[in-house]
Amino acid sequence: MVWNTEGAEPAAKRPEPSAEAARAWEAFGALELKRYALRSAQAYVEFAEVTTDPPEASEGRAATLGEIEAWDHDLLCGDGAGELLAALEGEPAPTSEPWREDELRVFARDRAQRLGVPAELERELTRRQSESSLAWRRAREAGDWGLFAPSLQSLVDLMIEVARAQDLGKDPYDVWLDRFEPGTDQAMLDPFFSQVGEAVASLLPRLRDDFAHPAAAPEGPFDAALQRELFYDIARLEGLDLDRLTLGETIHPVTCSVDSHHVMIANHTDPHDAVSGVYSMLHEGGHGLYDSHVDGRFDRTCLAQGTSAGIHESQSRFFENYVGRNRAFMPALLGLLMRHFPEAWDGWDAEALYALVNAVRPSPRRMDADELTYPLHILVRYEVERSLFSGEAEALDVPALWDGLYERYLGVRPAGIVEGALQDVHWSMGLFGYFPSYALGGAYGAQFLDAMLDEGVDVEGALAEGDLSPIAGWLEERIWRHGRSREPSQILVEATGSELDPSHYLAYLERKFAQR
Amino acid sequence: MVWNTEGAEPAAKRPEPSAEAARAWEAFGALELKRYALRSAQAYVEFAEVTTDPPEASEGRAATLGEIEAWDHDLLCGDGAGELLAALEGEPAPTSEPWREDELRVFARDRAQRLGVPAELERELTRRQSESSLAWRRAREAGDWGLFAPSLQSLVDLMIEVARAQDLGKDPYDVWLDRFEPGTDQAMLDPFFSQVGEAVASLLPRLRDDFAHPAAAPEGPFDAALQRELFYDIARLEGLDLDRLTLGETIHPVTCSVDSHHVMIANHTDPHDAVSGVYSMLHEGGHGLYDSHVDGRFDRTCLAQGTSAGIHESQSRFFENYVGRNRAFMPALLGLLMRHFPEAWDGWDAEALYALVNAVRPSPRRMDADELTYPLHILVRYEVERSLFSGEAEALDVPALWDGLYERYLGVRPAGIVEGALQDVHWSMGLFGYFPSYALGGAYGAQFLDAMLDEGVDVEGALAEGDLSPIAGWLEERIWRHGRSREPSQILVEATGSELDPSHYLAYLERKFAQR
Repeated sequence: MVWNTEGAEPAAKRPEPSAEAARAWEAFGALELKRYALRSAQAYVEFAEVTTDPPEASEGRAATLGEIEAWDHDLLCGDGAGELLAALEGEPAPTSEPWREDELRVFARDRAQRLGVPAELERELTRRQSESSLAWRRAREAGDWGLFAPSLQSLVDLMIEVARAQDLGKDPYDVWLDRFEPGTDQAMLDPFFSQVGEAVASLLPRLRDDFAHPAAAPEGPFDAALQRELFYDIARLEGLDLDRLTLGETIHPVTCSVDSHHVMIANHTDPHDAVSGVYSMLHEGGHGLYDSHVDGRFDRTCLAQGTSAGIHESQSRFFENYVGRNRAFMPALLGLLMRHFPEAWDGWDAEALYALVNAVRPSPRRMDADELTYPLHILVRYEVERSLFSGEAEALDVPALWDGLYERYLGVRPAGIVEGALQDVHWSMGLFGYFPSYALGGAYGAQFLDAMLDEGVDVEGALAEGDLSPIAGWLEERIWRHGRSREPSQILVEATGSELDPSHYLAYLERKFAQR
Repeated sequence: MVWNTEGAEPAAKRPEPSAEAARAWEAFGALELKRYALRSAQAYVEFAEVTTDPPEASEGRAATLGEIEAWDHDLLCGDGAGELLAALEGEPAPTSEPWREDELRVFARDRAQRLGVPAELERELTRRQSESSLAWRRAREAGDWGLFAPSLQSLVDLMIEVARAQDLGKDPYDVWLDRFEPGTDQAMLDPFFSQVGEAVASLLPRLRDDFAHPAAAPEGPFDAALQRELFYDIARLEGLDLDRLTLGETIHPVTCSVDSHHVMIANHTDPHDAVSGVYSMLHEGGHGLYDSHVDGRFDRTCLAQGTSAGIHESQSRFFENYVGRNRAFMPALLGLLMRHFPEAWDGWDAEALYALVNAVRPSPRRMDADELTYPLHILVRYEVERSLFSGEAEALDVPALWDGLYERYLGVRPAGIVEGALQDVHWSMGLFGYFPSYALGGAYGAQFLDAMLDEGVDVEGALAEGDLSPIAGWLEERIWRHGRSREPSQILVEATGSELDPSHYLAYLERKFAQR
């Protein structure tokens, strides 16, 4: 269904739909508009949840999100949608909107995936996610895993139940992995992670000297309002349209998109760290660029937003690492840091900044992880998730399991539970099976980078100029604009010539981090 | 239906509903929960609209709000609700929830009011409101009424159409007046406004000297983050529960409530005015107190929130004026101002602050209006609205009409359109018929104040202590907790012994502002 390959099929050959089919296409559009309204409302509510909502709001918000989820389930899985799908099967889309055939295909797949899951179960899942988010916040405040563990266990139990409802014959964790990244399962991820884990382990003893001993970072304090202005400058430099951006503040940075015209990014500020928020802004900005450059015609359809979590993370990590930690980018970045905090950065040069932001230092906190050891943090989470879903471990076992895996892979132990197993918001939101997409994203991104370079995009030149448009142009053309109209593997093959091939990623790490 | 008058009817006498009726009550609760989810989502989206949304978000947001409105219309006016109402007619509520009979009555009235208005018309209204909000913002930026006038006229035309659809035999402006304040119309408001207008006009030449020549207010600049902290202190002093409060920033302050557990207030800061934001915080805080003290059992029903716009404004204006501009409150207020801006307020005392915040100075801006001339600003808007709805004036005529009325009633002319007819957000949101409730609120509030004093509440003592709980306790008992379960007139009669009687308000103004 390569609708936009020019000349593949003369436009005149496409038949117009019958009058009856045209009415069905219209009704399908009205249904999609309703689902858009629900998605949009959900994005607003969830963004408020992580940025501005007070504690007492949680119960009502959970009820609201539960109703929204149930409505969407009804719209997607109800008889009305079934009848429309039957009426439109095999019918050509209106000639002016050939992409609507992709829309129908993706809609039908989403429907098939959820048809087995009773609305009541989905509603309960949404409720437990909200409750568990609150429990996670309280557990962090109290530094007490015991306040989170019961919610977590109950969420895992329910997610196993939902996975079985969707596909009784499939391993429940594989069901969730496939939801975030169509086509992935443990059989594919096990060798991927062991290959990446071994490569990083072999690199650590051969690390280049200049990444091991950076100058101490300035300690501030850095005014929150000034950091916010810096974030806007970063967003502008990345090429985000500020007329489409909401920027909020949170603990764990996140992007909630409404459509290509409205992207909401919640970033964090740290009064004693002027760099951490910059990199999370670069990261979330990558998500925002993707969502805001999906073809605007897809806005109120199921084709809006990115095609998978892994491809999405490939974009965020592209801007965080392949742009943000590139030597060629340092003058532009240092310029922005100095504009807002001139005293703190006095005496720094591009090389010193490069060493600072690329310092390799195994840490217990994923958010502080360097580019090299980052996938090891993901490996830990992947193993914990597998154990929870297989029943080998229960929620109460997680802190010991977690600390042991950190010791084993990174050689460090968290000082306490807040910088240990309570550090991520994901599980509290029911995002099991999501973490692997971060590691996949790194590997996809390196593959995109090589393809871009092969085609002659002057990446370093663009970074040195502080004008990222040649990079963004390539990504928009090959990835962003397609939204969900193409599968991850199709995107990869068409943009790079092959399916996932981790050798690009491993070669990149070797090139950047190893002694020569 | 005085369900909570103890002993009026022994509980044992109330029959339990039949099994069939019990099922209908349950289904009615499920319907109300859906409507709650829509209301709640709408509150989140509308709050984002005025606080954080970027310009490009407007089209998608309008579509979302349009769908939400249409859904709510379907739920309220659809056959399902009709069948439930028929099934529950005359049925007793479950004995543990006697208040649900009020819920049914209010739901049925809301339904009757909207049943004549086609969903498509309501959806179009919501769309035009969103478009016109955007046009208003652009017109303000450009200082050009012409950018707003076409949207405004199209909104007025449609509101007339909606009013006719609701009640063909009634004057369209009266329809909207009655929606915001059940029981009011032009026949009742005309004499009210002429009485208040004459009283204020007769007071102005007899104004007490101490209100005419206050010391100049400190000019700042006042840091926005510090002002925000001051607003939180004001909220705390008013008795708002910060665990239920979202505080955002906007041009025109507004309160959007989700339920009694979550109130969202958008306030404004002015870098050169440390007082204006304090009074809008006191005002919006009054709204927030009302909504957050409605009986929690009403949260997910149509009984949540205040009973009418006028009673709501009586609470906001109570805290703004009868609390905030009371001489006895000055030491507490000055203490807060000095805590956050000690240099700016150095050398001020309670009497100087009292003169400053009570200075009478006819101004072209409603938001800057003093307590005495405030109702004249409302009178201007009332007359403009009447002219627009009767067709005597069109949107393009408004600036000239507006300026002429300001000249006539206040003796001032706006320096430009932004401080003239573009100053309020209300019309752009379709809030025609709302302004009169501000003036009614002042009159209701004075009547509540007299009743409170008659019953021996030590208002001045509470203000002097900076502990407003005796005042809040009276208001909660008589007004807040009832939500929409009682009509405005019932609230008034039960709390004060009579229907609206403007003499309390006029006596208050005379007592406070006139030479003796």
